[in-house]
Amino acid sequence: MADNDENTIFIGGKPFMNYVTGVVMQFTTKGAKEVTIKARGKFISRAVDVAEVATRRFLKEHGIEIKDIKINSEEFKNKEGKNVNVSTMDIVLVKK
Amino acid sequence: MADNDENTIFIGGKPFMNYVTGVVMQFTTKGAKEVTIKARGKFISRAVDVAEVATRRFLKEHGIEIKDIKINSEEFKNKEGKNVNVSTMDIVLVKK
Repeated sequence: MADNDENTIFIGGKPFMNYVTGVVMQFTTKGAKEVTIKARGKFISRAVDVAEVATRRFLKEHGIEIKDIKINSEEFKNKEGKNVNVSTMDIVLVKK
Repeated sequence: MADNDENTIFIGGKPFMNYVTGVVMQFTTKGAKEVTIKARGKFISRAVDVAEVATRRFLKEHGIEIKDIKINSEEFKNKEGKNVNVSTMDIVLVKK
C-alpha cells in the first residue's frame, strides 16, 4: 500500500514540469519498476502530456513504456449537494 | 478507409451532447461494430467524458465496452513557425 502510494503521481494545478520530474525521478533516482499517473476531470489532458513528455523526452533510453491506460467515472457531491460524475484516468508506466 | 472515417468521432468545441449522441448513434442506428473517439490537446479530457457518458449512460444494454486506449504525440508548426508537440488520444469502443 505504502509502496503503491509512493509510485503514484496525482496530476493537479502545479507547474507542468514538477509532474514530469516526479515521474522521471521515480524511475531514475528511486528505481521504481512501475509508476501510475492519475488524474480527474480537466487534468486528464495534462496527465497525457506528462506521460508523453516523460517517456519520449526523458525516459527514452531507460526502456520505460506505457503498460496500461484505464478510464473510469467517480461520483461525488458538489457544493449544492448534487451528485456529479467526474471522469478519471490512470496511466501505468513500466520499466521493460 | 471510408468506413473508418465514418466510425471516427473527432472531439472539439461543439456542445458536449453532440459527441455523445454521435457515438451512441454509430452503434445503435448505423450498426457499427467499432467506433473510435479521437482528440488532441485540451480536448482529451472531453474525449474521456464522452466515452464514459456514452458507454455508462446510453450504451450499457448494448454491450459496448472500451477495447483500447492509445496516447501519442504529434508535432506541428505553430503561428510563429515553431515546432510544437501536442498529445493525442484514441479511445476505441467495441460491440461485444
